[in-house]
Amino acid sequence: MQVLDVFRQRHRVEFSDTDMAGIIHFSSYFRYMEVTEHAFLRACGFSVVGNDGLGWPRVDVGCNYKAPLRFEDEVDVVLSIDEMREKSIRYGFSFQQILGTTQIQVATGHVTTVCVQMDSVNKAMKATAIPENLRSALLNFRQLEQ
Amino acid sequence: MQVLDVFRQRHRVEFSDTDMAGIIHFSSYFRYMEVTEHAFLRACGFSVVGNDGLGWPRVDVGCNYKAPLRFEDEVDVVLSIDEMREKSIRYGFSFQQILGTTQIQVATGHVTTVCVQMDSVNKAMKATAIPENLRSALLNFRQLEQ
Amino acid sequence: MQVLDVFRQRHRVEFSDTDMAGIIHFSSYFRYMEVTEHAFLRACGFSVVGNDGLGWPRVDVGCNYKAPLRFEDEVDVVLSIDEMREKSIRYGFSFQQILGTTQIQVATGHVTTVCVQMDSVNKAMKATAIPENLRSALLNFRQLEQ
Amino acid sequence: MQVLDVFRQRHRVEFSDTDMAGIIHFSSYFRYMEVTEHAFLRACGFSVVGNDGLGWPRVDVGCNYKAPLRFEDEVDVVLSIDEMREKSIRYGFSFQQILGTTQIQVATGHVTTVCVQMDSVNKAMKATAIPENLRSALLNFRQLEQ
Repeated sequence: MQVLDVFRQRHRVEFSDTDMAGIIHFSSYFRYMEVTEHAFLRACGFSVVGNDGLGWPRVDVGCNYKAPLRFEDEVDVVLSIDEMREKSIRYGFSFQQILGTTQIQVATGHVTTVCVQMDSVNKAMKATAIPENLRSALLNFRQLEQ
Repeated sequence: MQVLDVFRQRHRVEFSDTDMAGIIHFSSYFRYMEVTEHAFLRACGFSVVGNDGLGWPRVDVGCNYKAPLRFEDEVDVVLSIDEMREKSIRYGFSFQQILGTTQIQVATGHVTTVCVQMDSVNKAMKATAIPENLRSALLNFRQLEQ
Repeated sequence: MQVLDVFRQRHRVEFSDTDMAGIIHFSSYFRYMEVTEHAFLRACGFSVVGNDGLGWPRVDVGCNYKAPLRFEDEVDVVLSIDEMREKSIRYGFSFQQILGTTQIQVATGHVTTVCVQMDSVNKAMKATAIPENLRSALLNFRQLEQ
Repeated sequence: MQVLDVFRQRHRVEFSDTDMAGIIHFSSYFRYMEVTEHAFLRACGFSVVGNDGLGWPRVDVGCNYKAPLRFEDEVDVVLSIDEMREKSIRYGFSFQQILGTTQIQVATGHVTTVCVQMDSVNKAMKATAIPENLRSALLNFRQLEQ
């Protein structure tokens, strides 16, 4: 089951995202993915930090780079739900650089995150089923045209 | 009351600390200060995250830059206790670049941090007196020659 | 000479800006200041990384914290030009948390940056006069009401 | 061709590496991988930023997380050369948490990086063969017992 292009958010490469090679540092892409994921959750009416004692640690992430981004470049991060399982979600991400009216894919990535119940005392984390209302909201989300 | 040069820790400028200007990003110095402060607390037998419910938010910080640091430069961060008050500590920091057998001061900084009791339920923070054993340990610390 | 409230930009506290104390890490404020400064330069028609071989290293920065910000809080960073000298600019920043229709100042900061000519060969930096067209654009900028 | 456990470097989880979930932020692992990679290059007598005009952009990275790390945890990052091709290297990383005399693998990762010639004028990057002396030094490196 794959729902493509569920959510799209524009980012600009900031100075502190760059390194001395003059391009964006490769680890910054993961921050962009997470910011987009959390914006998606908010758009669905949820927060990754709710009152429910749930947490979302990552179990597997990756990124593949095709072309570098530089300071002040603009890029759309397009989120898709690649897989929704009982206790985990695999998000896919496409990085599309904005070049006038054209977009070019410069990177792809993924984040697999598992739903856990956080023990407030000993801070242990136990995998648990994704709540039904959250699952339904994520799968049925359709972004309004911007 | 000033206790100079209480604690010294060597750092190396890492690639991700740099920006596209080819020098260390100015915000990285604050990370170096904090890492040194926490190493100092450990050397005194404490952790900034203890079982005591205490926290140490910052109330005032600053940094003055004299010369840039570049990738793979080595720098000693020298911590001093500039002021110890009932509920707060002002740490001073001197950044001394290692150049063979010479050291050159390339920056100075400070971090003023206040001791607070963290309410575990509503996460409110209330300023409180620094515990006597911690105060005593910090003021009496003398680093062994390395 | 002080020009207050020249430029205002909204930020949201992202997950990666927080630390285990549950609040935004104190060093993140400097990233917010820089992002706002660079947005201000763009709004004036300039980029901090131009074709002119100029650079803007920082010589003095500071931040004073009044109240913590937490994940997903919204904050306006308000930039002012506190001092414009021949070769340097001191920017002031006010962090104003958005609470419904109210705004509360939660921090203030400053960044003093010096205009330098970057030697493309040996990467040395030499302080130089701020170009007149840039100086004029910054001092005469007025943000449109949003 | 696989050369396991070529190089090992100890890291400590710093406060700024954590997030409000109380564990190390998932993106920090990539910083640890890179710091270890660069220490490995130095141990081989090279720097990732040399006088040769070569650069090492990343083309593919990933990380798999088995158990969380928390503030002040110690972890050995063990680098291996998983694949050495004409123009690229795939490094593998094993994160081994130090628990007294025991070590537990808490994560694995990889970074594939390509050797490029950087055009100093237009900053274009063109893949090029890894210099023979560098290739030989990396493949023949054996870390002294610590």
